[in-house]
Amino acid sequence: MLPFARVTIIGLGLIGSSIARAVRQAMPTVRLTGHDFDPAVRTTADTLQLCDDITDTAGAAVIDADLVILCVPVGAMGAAAAGFAADLPADAIVSDVGSCKAEVARALAEALPGATIIPAHPVAGTERSGPEAGFASLFHKRWCILTPAEGADPIAVERLAEFWRRLGADIELMAPDHHDRVLAVTSHLPHLIAYTIVGTASDLEEVTQSEVIKYSAGGFRDFTRIAASDPTMWRDVFLSNREAVLDMLQRFSEDLTALQRAIRLGKGEELFDHFERTRAIRRGIIEQGQDDPAPDFGRSHD
Amino acid sequence: MLPFARVTIIGLGLIGSSIARAVRQAMPTVRLTGHDFDPAVRTTADTLQLCDDITDTAGAAVIDADLVILCVPVGAMGAAAAGFAADLPADAIVSDVGSCKAEVARALAEALPGATIIPAHPVAGTERSGPEAGFASLFHKRWCILTPAEGADPIAVERLAEFWRRLGADIELMAPDHHDRVLAVTSHLPHLIAYTIVGTASDLEEVTQSEVIKYSAGGFRDFTRIAASDPTMWRDVFLSNREAVLDMLQRFSEDLTALQRAIRLGKGEELFDHFERTRAIRRGIIEQGQDDPAPDFGRSHD
Repeated sequence: MLPFARVTIIGLGLIGSSIARAVRQAMPTVRLTGHDFDPAVRTTADTLQLCDDITDTAGAAVIDADLVILCVPVGAMGAAAAGFAADLPADAIVSDVGSCKAEVARALAEALPGATIIPAHPVAGTERSGPEAGFASLFHKRWCILTPAEGADPIAVERLAEFWRRLGADIELMAPDHHDRVLAVTSHLPHLIAYTIVGTASDLEEVTQSEVIKYSAGGFRDFTRIAASDPTMWRDVFLSNREAVLDMLQRFSEDLTALQRAIRLGKGEELFDHFERTRAIRRGIIEQGQDDPAPDFGRSHD
Repeated sequence: MLPFARVTIIGLGLIGSSIARAVRQAMPTVRLTGHDFDPAVRTTADTLQLCDDITDTAGAAVIDADLVILCVPVGAMGAAAAGFAADLPADAIVSDVGSCKAEVARALAEALPGATIIPAHPVAGTERSGPEAGFASLFHKRWCILTPAEGADPIAVERLAEFWRRLGADIELMAPDHHDRVLAVTSHLPHLIAYTIVGTASDLEEVTQSEVIKYSAGGFRDFTRIAASDPTMWRDVFLSNREAVLDMLQRFSEDLTALQRAIRLGKGEELFDHFERTRAIRRGIIEQGQDDPAPDFGRSHD
């Protein structure tokens, strides 16, 4: 028994198009409808046959849906939901894939009063954007965090959980505020740091951009991957999850200052002790299947 | 015509053992001798048959060498060189693979007065350590930077360059101080930042280590790879290249403060503009073959 028979995806970028492909593969009888605000993306989605129907308006996309998933930048969630509010069937479940949950939940509740809203966040992605970048296995063995409001219908939560399980994801339930603090450290702060260091390296005068590129295999190239992520998506994340990001950033800066001081004072033992203990986290990530066990992320070395 | 007939490797970890394997593959008639200060590493190197001979002392390893390569942490270079100074043939070339060049050049010149020293730095590696971690293709299409002192014998430089070309590397010549500033940004600062953020994430009270691991696919896991690198090697790098690292760190901190301020004040346009321009560097790295062109470093999704 399928959790949903008619699924609508609003926003057909990396995540939306990956959901479409994964649904096709895992639940081929589901009727898939898609919409994107960008006509060019709709045309591409049509050409790629991502969905059974690509509609020109968000309202037309949701009119007979039993699940609507918003896959737009978090700052656009409220407006996107308002765009189909009048056409949403009363028994439809609305979800999203946004990287921040507290503010998105507020925006969706405001735009869709009375609707059944179960926010979600599949912790998966690549640095690519757009409908061509998606692929069906993106969510395999990744965590999908559901953040239902207190008192949310448990049957609706379970249907959405089952939907994501069929796409290959593992499910966790979390309060929205806690989600936002956890993701501030495991996702938002890393992106901010990566964007910063890539900017710093680009702006040096005595070291040319060409040198930065040539010798990037010393470590820098790792940071350029996530700093190549979608700028709109990430601008919205930092604005939406401002408090948690600023708090984590404060802690990071304090720790960086401590290491800076250890370098300045030549405190080798303090540096060694710090570098020694960070290995354990990598081991945990590998053991739990959250990264490639091969060295160097399994990059090809010829 | 081989650039060298008898090559000695002092230090048989990731880099030393990769050189041994690469020499075996590219120049099978070279007589390879190895030594490591750690008896357990010597035993492993023997078992793996990395070299024709593994000697118990550094002196015995160099006695008939025409190239000696030091592959030990940069802080141990001087002592390692002093350990074989009395046995070094007058016509041997001494080189190293250290990540900092100015201080290593000074340490080697002091330990080996009158010797022909051509420092080098192959910009390649993985997060693994030890003799089992090496592999022959590690240097393929990576840059090897030679930092000969002013007035160094050009024939010796060219022989060493040819040696590295045969291991698959491209060659660049650079002044030691400039090398140290370039690598401070493309390698040392990224490692320091990665070590810091992994430490910050481990120390949070409200977000458990288990949560950090579970949701690391949001970006954090990328940082854990280089933060799993050898602690001794990296302690020495930061102490040896202190000035350049502290200077780059200062610039990074200023840039981070600017982004922090943009987030606090809700300046979306400023964030967007910054995130937009960091994509170009990634493209350059891919175009120049310095990273895997596949999304997500080519990590397996499935």
